[in-house]
Amino acid sequence: MAEEVENRKIVLKRYIERMPVESDMELKVGGRIKLKAPSGSGGVVVKNLYLSCDPYMRGRMRDFHGSYIPPFVLGEAIRGFGVSKVVDSDDPKFKRGDIVCGVTGWEEYSFIERTEELRKIEQDDLPLSYHVGLLGMPGFTAYVGFYEICSPKKGEYVFISAAAGAVGQLVGQLAKLHGCYVVGSAGSSEKVDLLKNKFGFDEAFNYKEEKDLDAALKRYFPNGIDIYFENVGGPMLDAVLLNMRVHGRIAVCGMISQNSTSSPQGIHNLYTLIYKRVTMKGFLQSDYVHLFPQFLDHVISNFKQGKIVYIEDMKHGLENAPAAFVRLFNGTNVGKQVVCVAQE
Amino acid sequence: MAEEVENRKIVLKRYIERMPVESDMELKVGGRIKLKAPSGSGGVVVKNLYLSCDPYMRGRMRDFHGSYIPPFVLGEAIRGFGVSKVVDSDDPKFKRGDIVCGVTGWEEYSFIERTEELRKIEQDDLPLSYHVGLLGMPGFTAYVGFYEICSPKKGEYVFISAAAGAVGQLVGQLAKLHGCYVVGSAGSSEKVDLLKNKFGFDEAFNYKEEKDLDAALKRYFPNGIDIYFENVGGPMLDAVLLNMRVHGRIAVCGMISQNSTSSPQGIHNLYTLIYKRVTMKGFLQSDYVHLFPQFLDHVISNFKQGKIVYIEDMKHGLENAPAAFVRLFNGTNVGKQVVCVAQE
Repeated sequence: MAEEVENRKIVLKRYIERMPVESDMELKVGGRIKLKAPSGSGGVVVKNLYLSCDPYMRGRMRDFHGSYIPPFVLGEAIRGFGVSKVVDSDDPKFKRGDIVCGVTGWEEYSFIERTEELRKIEQDDLPLSYHVGLLGMPGFTAYVGFYEICSPKKGEYVFISAAAGAVGQLVGQLAKLHGCYVVGSAGSSEKVDLLKNKFGFDEAFNYKEEKDLDAALKRYFPNGIDIYFENVGGPMLDAVLLNMRVHGRIAVCGMISQNSTSSPQGIHNLYTLIYKRVTMKGFLQSDYVHLFPQFLDHVISNFKQGKIVYIEDMKHGLENAPAAFVRLFNGTNVGKQVVCVAQE
Repeated sequence: MAEEVENRKIVLKRYIERMPVESDMELKVGGRIKLKAPSGSGGVVVKNLYLSCDPYMRGRMRDFHGSYIPPFVLGEAIRGFGVSKVVDSDDPKFKRGDIVCGVTGWEEYSFIERTEELRKIEQDDLPLSYHVGLLGMPGFTAYVGFYEICSPKKGEYVFISAAAGAVGQLVGQLAKLHGCYVVGSAGSSEKVDLLKNKFGFDEAFNYKEEKDLDAALKRYFPNGIDIYFENVGGPMLDAVLLNMRVHGRIAVCGMISQNSTSSPQGIHNLYTLIYKRVTMKGFLQSDYVHLFPQFLDHVISNFKQGKIVYIEDMKHGLENAPAAFVRLFNGTNVGKQVVCVAQE
C-alpha cells in the first residue's frame, strides 16, 4: 500500500481582470495524495521545493482562452515553474531522489503525468532555486531576448525597464559583458542601488521619481538608445520611442501584457518606428529551446567566475505563496520572487 | 544674356498640426527665373512636368525639426518629388532636354543645385509621371517593404490598409505575384471595386462601412494575418494586432505618422506582439537604394507583361496642386495623386 500524506495547496478562487491581490488565492488544507506514481501512467510524484512567481501567470488568472496558455482551473492548485524532488517515478528517465525542474503545482506534492518537459537538474554548488530564475525561464528569456532579438553590438546603448527583476538583472549583466553601455530603470532607490552597485549597470534611475520620462531618458542617453529591453509598456515605452536611435531594436517581453488593461491611454509614439527605422519584436523563450544548453554553459561559466550575480527574493512556506506572488505587481519584491516550500 | 521667364510657385503659408487644407498653401505669381544654370554651380535648371503629392509631405508642414527631414520654408516653393526636363545644365552628367526625376520645387521652373540625387530617366513607352509613382519612391517603398521587410512566403495571408493608394496598390499586386492571399482595405466602394477587379486582390472592404474592424478582419482572415503592410495606424492597427498569426510581420510605413496626432486614444494591443511573436518594423525606402535597379527591372518587366497595373489620379495645372494635395488626406484621390504642370 502506497503511503498517503496530507497535501496542502494554493488555489485560485476567482478569475480577475485587475491586479491580483492575496485574497484571489487561498490555502486549501485537508487534501491527500498517494506518494506512488500509478503503474502505466508514465508519470512522477514529486515533492515541491521551490515555486516560481512570474508575471506571465497573471494572464492565467483571466477567464480568457485566446492566449498561448489557458486559464488556471478554479479550485485546483495554481500551476507554475518549480524545482521538485522525485518521490516516485513510473518514467524510466527519472528515479526517486532526482531533482527536477518544470511546470508543477502550488502544493506540497504533485503528480506530474506529462514528464516530457521536466528537466533533470545536475546538482552542483549553485542554489537549486536558481533553476526557476537565473538558470530557468527568466534567465533564458534574458539570454534569448538579448542575443537573438536585440542583435547587440559592442558599444551600443542599452536601456532596460524593470531592470532589477528576474529577467532585467541578467539582461543588464549580459549587455555589460558584451561591451554595451547599460542603463536600467526600477521602482525604488534600493533597486537603483542594486543596479549600480551590485549588477554593474553604468547608470540607473527610479522611474517613480521622474516627472518626465522623456527628459530622464535624454539625460541618460544624450545620443539615444540602440536597444530597449521592454518589460513594462505604457508611458515608459512611449518615452523610449522618442529616444530610439536609427536602426534601433526593441525586444518586447513580459509585463507589457499587463499594461494592456492598466494603461487606457495607449501608445502614441509608434510613428517614430518609421523615421528611426526601428524594429520591435515580440518573443517567447520557448521558441528557442535549442539554445538552452549553450545558455546554461554561458551563464553558469560566467556566474562561477563571479562575472554574473543574481538576486532572489525568497519567501518561506507554501502558505505565503499568494503574498509572495502579489509582490510582483506592487513592486515590493527585490529580485527574482521565489517561494521555498521545503528545503529538500 | 540668359532668357528670364515668369515662374509661378506654390508656397506654404503657415505651419500646421492639423490636416492640411487648401488655404494653407497659395499660388505666388510674379516671380522670375533665369533659364541658365550659373557657371561653376554644378546645378541644373529644369522645367517641371509632373509633381508628386505624397503623405510624408505633411510632416514637413509642421514646425518640427526632430524628424529625418526639416520643415518646408514658409514663402518658398514647396518641395517634393517630380519629373522634370532639363533646360540648362552646368553638370556634365545632364544635358538640355534630359528628363530627370528627383526632388524639385512646386513651381514652373526650378534651379536644382544638388544634382547627386537626380536620376536621368531612360524614356520608353511608360508614362513619365510613373517615375514619381509606380517607378518612383512609392513603388520602391512597396517593393522594399514587401520583399525586404515582410519576408513573404508563398501562400501567406497578407493584409494592406490604404490599399488603393500609391504604395498599397503595388504591394498587393506584388503579393499576388508571390502567391499570397491578399486583402486590402480602402475608404470608398469605388476603391474597393478597383482593388478586386483591377488590381486582382482576393478580397477588399470599405473600412468606413465596418463598425467593428476586428470582426471584419476575422471575416476575411479566419486563420489570421501573416503580413500586414501598415499605412494608416490608429484603430486599424489595433484591430490587426488582434488578428496576427504566430511569427507574423508588420511593415510600418507612411501614414501612421499622421495618425500620431489624430488618434489621441493610442494603440492598446501591442501585448499581442509577445504571445504571437510578431515583428513590427519601421523602414524608409532610402535605406535600400542599392536595390533600386532590380526594383525597376522587376516592376517594368511585370508591367509590360500586363501582370502589374497602376492607377494615377492626375490633376492638371500648378494652380491646382494644393487642391490635389489635400485629396490625400480626405481620401478623395483614387490612386497615386499627381499634378501635371506641363506635358513637356
